[in-house]
Amino acid sequence: MRMYDIIKKKRDGGELSTDEINYFVENYTNGKIPDYQISALLMAIYLNKMNKRETLDLTKAMVYSGDIVDLSKINGLKVDKHSTGGVGDTTTIVLGPMVAACGVPFVKMSGRGLGHTGGTLDKLESIKDFRVELSTEEFINNTNDINISICSQTANITPADKKLYALRDVTATVENISLIASSIMSKKLAIESDAIILDVKVGSGAFMKNLDDAINLGKEMVEIGTGYGRETIALVTNMDEPLGNAIGNALEVKEAIDVLKGNGPDDLHELCIKLGSILLLLAKRVKNEDEAKFLLEETIRNRSAYEKFIELVKYQDGDINYVKNPELLPKANYIIEVKSKDEGYVKALNAEEIGKCALALGAGRETMDSKIDLSAGIILNKKVDDKVEIGDILAYIHANNIDKAKEVEKKIKEIFIIGDKNKESKKLIYGIITKDEVEIF
Amino acid sequence: MRMYDIIKKKRDGGELSTDEINYFVENYTNGKIPDYQISALLMAIYLNKMNKRETLDLTKAMVYSGDIVDLSKINGLKVDKHSTGGVGDTTTIVLGPMVAACGVPFVKMSGRGLGHTGGTLDKLESIKDFRVELSTEEFINNTNDINISICSQTANITPADKKLYALRDVTATVENISLIASSIMSKKLAIESDAIILDVKVGSGAFMKNLDDAINLGKEMVEIGTGYGRETIALVTNMDEPLGNAIGNALEVKEAIDVLKGNGPDDLHELCIKLGSILLLLAKRVKNEDEAKFLLEETIRNRSAYEKFIELVKYQDGDINYVKNPELLPKANYIIEVKSKDEGYVKALNAEEIGKCALALGAGRETMDSKIDLSAGIILNKKVDDKVEIGDILAYIHANNIDKAKEVEKKIKEIFIIGDKNKESKKLIYGIITKDEVEIF
Repeated sequence: MRMYDIIKKKRDGGELSTDEINYFVENYTNGKIPDYQISALLMAIYLNKMNKRETLDLTKAMVYSGDIVDLSKINGLKVDKHSTGGVGDTTTIVLGPMVAACGVPFVKMSGRGLGHTGGTLDKLESIKDFRVELSTEEFINNTNDINISICSQTANITPADKKLYALRDVTATVENISLIASSIMSKKLAIESDAIILDVKVGSGAFMKNLDDAINLGKEMVEIGTGYGRETIALVTNMDEPLGNAIGNALEVKEAIDVLKGNGPDDLHELCIKLGSILLLLAKRVKNEDEAKFLLEETIRNRSAYEKFIELVKYQDGDINYVKNPELLPKANYIIEVKSKDEGYVKALNAEEIGKCALALGAGRETMDSKIDLSAGIILNKKVDDKVEIGDILAYIHANNIDKAKEVEKKIKEIFIIGDKNKESKKLIYGIITKDEVEIF
Repeated sequence: MRMYDIIKKKRDGGELSTDEINYFVENYTNGKIPDYQISALLMAIYLNKMNKRETLDLTKAMVYSGDIVDLSKINGLKVDKHSTGGVGDTTTIVLGPMVAACGVPFVKMSGRGLGHTGGTLDKLESIKDFRVELSTEEFINNTNDINISICSQTANITPADKKLYALRDVTATVENISLIASSIMSKKLAIESDAIILDVKVGSGAFMKNLDDAINLGKEMVEIGTGYGRETIALVTNMDEPLGNAIGNALEVKEAIDVLKGNGPDDLHELCIKLGSILLLLAKRVKNEDEAKFLLEETIRNRSAYEKFIELVKYQDGDINYVKNPELLPKANYIIEVKSKDEGYVKALNAEEIGKCALALGAGRETMDSKIDLSAGIILNKKVDDKVEIGDILAYIHANNIDKAKEVEKKIKEIFIIGDKNKESKKLIYGIITKDEVEIF
């Protein structure tokens, strides 16, 4: 088999065989095929596309390029969750404890933030001494003990995907449904949970800017998961504005704790209930969605989800006083109020732009080597569809650099589009994708 | 300017600006842009194409990536010739002396053979001591003295094209009209002749396998040459069977001498007259084609072309006895007759396959590092449309390795397709492409 012939076949619109896909993934990972041949192939794939069979084969080849995390020693049906990335997306920290408190093992290997989107591991590190690096044994044992474990990916998960993604990133071959779906799903499938819920974000702050693209990505991922023998369901959810009110690491942890205590923003609460109810159904913990929702709401009311979070922090060596008293979490030196000069209704609040403001304050990473300011960020006081009077506080800026805070203040005033009431009120959840159907609400 | 954005633009079907093209050519040549980004761009260009403006800009950028050979010190209108490559294509060695004998300066920097096609430099080296490496000064002075000079390309002509071609060769991005045309034309334009005749080969032994592709390539090259301010005309000619009867270096030199003496095969003679008459017109040496043809035929009749060739050999330090007595040229140890088992007419004689046979005998290079056997090759005794009886000699194999000769004998018998007479007799010249029109005969 020759790499040249594989490139030529895809260039000419052909379908790559399983052997051809395995060949290039294996030999690229082990360094036998040079970058320049793979980037030509990636561009040919980008422009001529892959069909479902090829996409599933690519995913499998990437899964088997590295270690597989065998979770068979965890009792019961284990669930996993993935978000395609957004701004203020604190879901995992709320959802995990809720699901675990219902008795369903929640196994999650998370990532760090990059660009305008945050990462669960960075957020959890706002809690003093919280350890995100666990051995596979600890990951398994902790989950067997308390039904939850959230840690970083072990070193050698899907090395093929890491190498391919790095190359796609510099050759303008990222935004292809097959390549995105196989990249995400390979990482999920290498960790052997029983069921996966995918939160496909759509809107200004998401990777997918329009609903059709998001639905297509969701379908492709559900097909891959199902084709691989894993129960997989995707929700398509709103990322036109940030989720919740907090953007920034410590600020989001505090907000997550608020939600776990029943005091958080409605959208974050609602999304966690929806995601959780699907997981409870997939894990066969309940018979129907109503039962699932009741159980999940109960974990908030009876504080069992909050207690579960404390347990999680304790098991991963974090200081539980930071959860019990969130005032201990890293705090910024300055809190600046951003006030409205206009009156009317918030028509739009571009999530990506808000994410970039938080990034400018130090809450995120420009590159993987950047250092994060855990205390910095933004608390939104108004969101889309809210009524605003002149002088009302739109947001609070948490910053340690007053000059940057002043710049961000100006930007936030521009980001808030205030005018007439929108004709249609915003939606949080656009639809659900199962292996059998796409239901748009 | 960022390479990423250039790739993305072409990926999305956009038109690259002159600055963008100059940027990537310059920075790839100087090593600032890595192969993997250029190969992704090349695949995007391959699939989304370049328009005429982009193709001309790419050509210019490649011309200016290296040295320009200034020929202004050569008196008169200088002509150059290029063939897209074929089997048994001995044209340059015949055409050059004929045109020069008419008083028109013929300036030609040639290449070496690769794969199933031969190279003029290798052929000329069959003549003892013939020196193909000339300084630019020698190249100019020789042409001023005797109206002809044939040498190797100086080191730093179009380094961008060399680098891009090497990358295209391993990333399945060769066969794109814009990329082929700009590659060929950049090398021609870096050598500042006044007029160029392009011999676009089409058929089994050529790069272009069908007439439409050949016409498109010819049009593109003529447009580039013209757009660059150079008089350029293309002929589209037959390469379904080899040109002339000889394939192999010394064998082709002997055949060229035969043609110069008026005893060579008709097709090679006819093509040289046609190519030469266009060059004489472009150089304003004659008023019309009839006059050109008369003058060119006269150089054969009066032996002035043959004498010109002897002069060329003398000026480039070759032993002229090898021209006067071609029996001195390198000779193979074995000459094997290939006899027909069938009777009928030669229906087809695949030029690429015959070229590969010659390559197997050692007449060509598998890679640029291969050593050539100058004496090896094939002499065709029958060509397409010829009548054949059982036992007739189809070809003579000239070889130094008897085992290889036996293998090739079998293959040649398969390559000769003998049967009923073809309904249409073969054509040598399919058409002519000028800046104003495409005329198909």
